[in-house]
Amino acid sequence: MILYGKPVVESLEQETTLWINNNLPNGCYVWFLLISDDYASSVYVTKKQQFASRCGLWSFLYQGTDAILNDVLQKINEWNTDAACVWIVVQLPVHVWLRSDLPKILSSVDPKKDVDGLWWIIFWQSLTGIVNFLPATPKATFALLDFYGFGDLNSKTVVMIWQSNLMWKPFVLEAMRRWATVFSANSNTPKELLQEMCLKSDYIISATWVVDLLTPSFFDFKNLTWKIIIDVGYGIKNGKACGDTDWQWLAALWATITPVPGGVGPVTVACLFHNITILGSIDW
Amino acid sequence: MILYGKPVVESLEQETTLWINNNLPNGCYVWFLLISDDYASSVYVTKKQQFASRCGLWSFLYQGTDAILNDVLQKINEWNTDAACVWIVVQLPVHVWLRSDLPKILSSVDPKKDVDGLWWIIFWQSLTGIVNFLPATPKATFALLDFYGFGDLNSKTVVMIWQSNLMWKPFVLEAMRRWATVFSANSNTPKELLQEMCLKSDYIISATWVVDLLTPSFFDFKNLTWKIIIDVGYGIKNGKACGDTDWQWLAALWATITPVPGGVGPVTVACLFHNITILGSIDW
Repeated sequence: MILYGKPVVESLEQETTLWINNNLPNGCYVWFLLISDDYASSVYVTKKQQFASRCGLWSFLYQGTDAILNDVLQKINEWNTDAACVWIVVQLPVHVWLRSDLPKILSSVDPKKDVDGLWWIIFWQSLTGIVNFLPATPKATFALLDFYGFGDLNSKTVVMIWQSNLMWKPFVLEAMRRWATVFSANSNTPKELLQEMCLKSDYIISATWVVDLLTPSFFDFKNLTWKIIIDVGYGIKNGKACGDTDWQWLAALWATITPVPGGVGPVTVACLFHNITILGSIDW
Repeated sequence: MILYGKPVVESLEQETTLWINNNLPNGCYVWFLLISDDYASSVYVTKKQQFASRCGLWSFLYQGTDAILNDVLQKINEWNTDAACVWIVVQLPVHVWLRSDLPKILSSVDPKKDVDGLWWIIFWQSLTGIVNFLPATPKATFALLDFYGFGDLNSKTVVMIWQSNLMWKPFVLEAMRRWATVFSANSNTPKELLQEMCLKSDYIISATWVVDLLTPSFFDFKNLTWKIIIDVGYGIKNGKACGDTDWQWLAALWATITPVPGGVGPVTVACLFHNITILGSIDW
């Protein structure tokens, strides 16, 4: 079974548009802050702006090619106090010279407008179950699982391959909240151990961006029908986009798997905006 | 090798006392809030008060046998605004009728006085590496490991048996920060899988409070010399205190293990107060 992102995106888009129509006055907008020269980042921002527009939201882009910390903080402060600006999105990564200031930048965003949910209040509230909020990428993983009916992780084993503060550590916490047994691997995990855990687990989530990380030896290819694989990798192989696995091969062997491209990627953008409905329902 | 808590406590006590002497005026105090009838909780609070006294701090106890939410919030507010009250400790668990208000209670403590570090600012700052702060119990586990020279988890595999929001989820995050491969198990984890992970892992942290959870079948008893076991369990067996393992048996087979009692328990109290030095060094 191939877990395509498209129907998930459509469902999230519909829900988000409805929420915006019912809850926001006309003329509200989102500010995007792009402070890097990274080409991929500018592509992502464009996709996010297109999605915002489909949901009925205006959006503006501030591109600070040589922005310094003060410029950034001043802009964020303007948007924080502008009532018509309903959300602020800081596109990561930022310029090298701003990286050490990233906590300062993220924390300067009014939490009510922090649709990425990267700052502490939301994060902690989510950990302790007060709200159900996740940053866009881990949320996209669960949105896919929920949409296709695989979201109940109780008594299941999940391998999460990658550990990052703002994406995959929150993923692991959410998997625990859903009562999964979790195996969290990083680049120092011995390959044999990782292989074994992949063989034994019900779910594999791979986000390493290492092309062909999960070779055939990571799978028991005679028995893949109950295996669920979410490929959050991205790379280029023979001139084509690909993930951490050979999803076509795995799908042909009856694994349940997300394609790359067309799997988690587009759902991530939809989840960023779907978080608007969660933020809007919080009792501040 | 037996990892006794005592020398760790002594070292932490010395560091904390020194910090208090150098950084606080005389006459500062800690308020303890005990809002439950739980006998174990009152024992813990007494131990904490004794430790505070050894570090040169006054402490007071507010015991609200039939306290309602408003009483508690009013008290906390008094202490928040009292300059001589430097820390506030909410002893968990609280009365059944206050449980749903727990987030409200914890969040009402001024973060600068929140020595348990249970509220969001510290938690998030720690996750993202801005400060190095952990709640007392997971901190005690790492304090023991660090003291005895086993704190470097890079490329190691750690099994954490128990998942709770304010203790063992933060533990898992810290283990990841130290580059461990982490296996996080809960009460629904299949026993065979848990057994296998215990056999394969370098570190076992068990906090289930299930007496004799880790029976001999969880260990390869011919090859225990490189295994490090932190037993955070507590129970009674044949009239005596015990943990999740039979530590005497394991120690006799050359495992490196904490005893119960006398292992993690006393270090937890010392860590609560050692967090004072971390809180005091944060640039608010």
